[in-house]
Amino acid sequence: MPNSTSPALLSVATALARILASLQPTAVQRLPLADALGYFLADDIKAKLTLPPHDVSSMDGFAVRAQDVAACPASLTRVGESAAGHPWPGRLGPQQAVRIFTGAYVPDGADCIVIQENVAAASEADGSQITVLKAGSRGRYIRPAGLDITAGDIALAKGSYLSARRIALAIAAGETSALVCTPPRIGILSTGDELVPPGTPPGPGQIISSNAAFLTAFVKNCGAHPIDLGIAIDAPGAVHTAVSAAHDLDMVVTTGGASVGTHDHIVSDLAHGKLDFWKIAMRPGKPLIWGEIGGIPLLGLPGNPVSTAVCALVFLQPAIAALCGGQHTHAMFRAAIATDMPENDQRQDYIRATIETTEAQLAVRPATKQDSSMMGVLATADALIVRPPFDPPLTAGDLVDILPLPRLF
Amino acid sequence: MPNSTSPALLSVATALARILASLQPTAVQRLPLADALGYFLADDIKAKLTLPPHDVSSMDGFAVRAQDVAACPASLTRVGESAAGHPWPGRLGPQQAVRIFTGAYVPDGADCIVIQENVAAASEADGSQITVLKAGSRGRYIRPAGLDITAGDIALAKGSYLSARRIALAIAAGETSALVCTPPRIGILSTGDELVPPGTPPGPGQIISSNAAFLTAFVKNCGAHPIDLGIAIDAPGAVHTAVSAAHDLDMVVTTGGASVGTHDHIVSDLAHGKLDFWKIAMRPGKPLIWGEIGGIPLLGLPGNPVSTAVCALVFLQPAIAALCGGQHTHAMFRAAIATDMPENDQRQDYIRATIETTEAQLAVRPATKQDSSMMGVLATADALIVRPPFDPPLTAGDLVDILPLPRLF
Repeated sequence: MPNSTSPALLSVATALARILASLQPTAVQRLPLADALGYFLADDIKAKLTLPPHDVSSMDGFAVRAQDVAACPASLTRVGESAAGHPWPGRLGPQQAVRIFTGAYVPDGADCIVIQENVAAASEADGSQITVLKAGSRGRYIRPAGLDITAGDIALAKGSYLSARRIALAIAAGETSALVCTPPRIGILSTGDELVPPGTPPGPGQIISSNAAFLTAFVKNCGAHPIDLGIAIDAPGAVHTAVSAAHDLDMVVTTGGASVGTHDHIVSDLAHGKLDFWKIAMRPGKPLIWGEIGGIPLLGLPGNPVSTAVCALVFLQPAIAALCGGQHTHAMFRAAIATDMPENDQRQDYIRATIETTEAQLAVRPATKQDSSMMGVLATADALIVRPPFDPPLTAGDLVDILPLPRLF
Repeated sequence: MPNSTSPALLSVATALARILASLQPTAVQRLPLADALGYFLADDIKAKLTLPPHDVSSMDGFAVRAQDVAACPASLTRVGESAAGHPWPGRLGPQQAVRIFTGAYVPDGADCIVIQENVAAASEADGSQITVLKAGSRGRYIRPAGLDITAGDIALAKGSYLSARRIALAIAAGETSALVCTPPRIGILSTGDELVPPGTPPGPGQIISSNAAFLTAFVKNCGAHPIDLGIAIDAPGAVHTAVSAAHDLDMVVTTGGASVGTHDHIVSDLAHGKLDFWKIAMRPGKPLIWGEIGGIPLLGLPGNPVSTAVCALVFLQPAIAALCGGQHTHAMFRAAIATDMPENDQRQDYIRATIETTEAQLAVRPATKQDSSMMGVLATADALIVRPPFDPPLTAGDLVDILPLPRLF
């Protein structure tokens, strides 16, 4: 039978490394930072400003000289006020205090903030006397200039993913725009004579194509542009024809047709390009294809929806990051499994699971059914349990690696 | 001094519960599923179709009667082919086999799939003899009709967050649109005389406003519409004036001015509305305000950027989900800390940390500096270590709760 000649199964790590090694970043463009959410930086962002720009107070209180409050109670004369945006312009002398608020510049001559809870003050008028009740020390409650960042430092390195907090940092450091990688254009092609488009009632033997809807949303979430290449029939050359009709693709992702059944033609269509590998030691997702068609990198995902989704997470998201000049590594954690599990075979297993959190512990429970066609199970999963090849039998309570499913996945 | 009259500190859980209890979902709208990524469902989606619609094969091989292959080798006559999208229309009789491919309908009369690796077949022609080398059992490699979902079942429940995999499920189940909650309109108002807008060179005592940029991106990530209300000066009534000028807001989020210093006016401005609470047992984020101004819920975040960001994660994201008729709970995990940590005080602590993964374990290392002004530390953090009030001293290797920072945060 056809697959008696199948090559040895590649490990997931090797397959991913080969995919990433063959991808080059796309072109770059400059965007206002306000429009750059979800992009990857194509160049370092250096701070134009020092933050904070001056020693500032981290509390409401009084700016004083530490030596004047070494012994308490100490009586000082209030000589002014420093508020955020309104620095006190003078220089603090002996036995003087300046009323100060959070974020305000520490006046020259002051080296300590006494918090207001430790001060008895008769009034908020300058010239009044205050009594410091508790000694302060040098530098206390002062954020020194440059605590956060210094002008000229790299605020965000090339390749950084521009999330909300990083955009805020770049703006605070005086930047307004960013050089980013142009979102790669990812062609999405479903294959299968059984598929009808969403909105078409399926006839006998037909089902609605849903992998393209998944991949369209997924590719957007990864920061790339999905390009709909439609549905290719199960016939030799159909994939090549569909890809040839599209323009300026940075990668093609197909679903289905990835086995070597009589009706699976993607591997043979790669005679029009090149086949790097197919078949990996992974479940779901064994028939994964990596190659090139018409000069365009092609990732062939298996057609079962759970296989499509898991392989997209494991391979497509890092691949898109590489096309953007960045990196994506899924955060992995460890949790106790809620049930026993049998020994694993030679394939790395990605097991749909829910997380059960109690006061005492966090447990992860594999779904009872792991069939790769079951979209309902995937839709309600919280995480994938990742089991390496030949993992020995596990007992409830053993720790396993888990990959929490991203919110938009 | 002013805050000697401060109320007792609320716990984070109580504060969040009071915020969520006071919010009502916004209006609803119907959207094509292709446009509904990141929305919350305002109604159940019931499956219109059964998936799979018929018993289908999960492998490439031959559909047979299990009783005919109970003893092997067994010789059968190939009578046809069933491929995905091309069901075989007949009924399988004794000693007959139908060539079958993954996803294809199992012919009537067949109750077992023999995988092609276990068959010796002379040709792919109908009428030819095949030899089954290894016995199969009833139901083997058959996905029964309805394994995934049955028409009429709830595919996605009201309140579900529409991620990529859930949109795909709804489409596969025959749906094309979804009733979703209209994205709430969230007014974002920065306060502080020290702030200048991005693009303006700061003068003495001034800094660039960056919290609004953070919140704009964050609010988008949460599925809501940010509305820029600009920067309010530190003067009584300024917040009320700015909010009154905006239209159709579902919530206002302010940053800064949340203490009770002479220059902090948000609490007093809530005389124009109502003050539910301010000050919570949290670090960063103690001066958090929840109230109402001009009939609009107001969340007052502290002005330090890390406090703003952490409080947005802890309170604003769940609040937006509640306005959308959904729920958001941050996934929490456990990991070993990489260093000793001292006893915690009465405030729940959200400690910026990086994750260090080795083959043997996953450790979480608190950043050396935890000052709530330090955007650079936040920008490179992987997770927050969440320590409950009065947590005892910890030793390196002890397990702590961690909140991994979302990718777009």
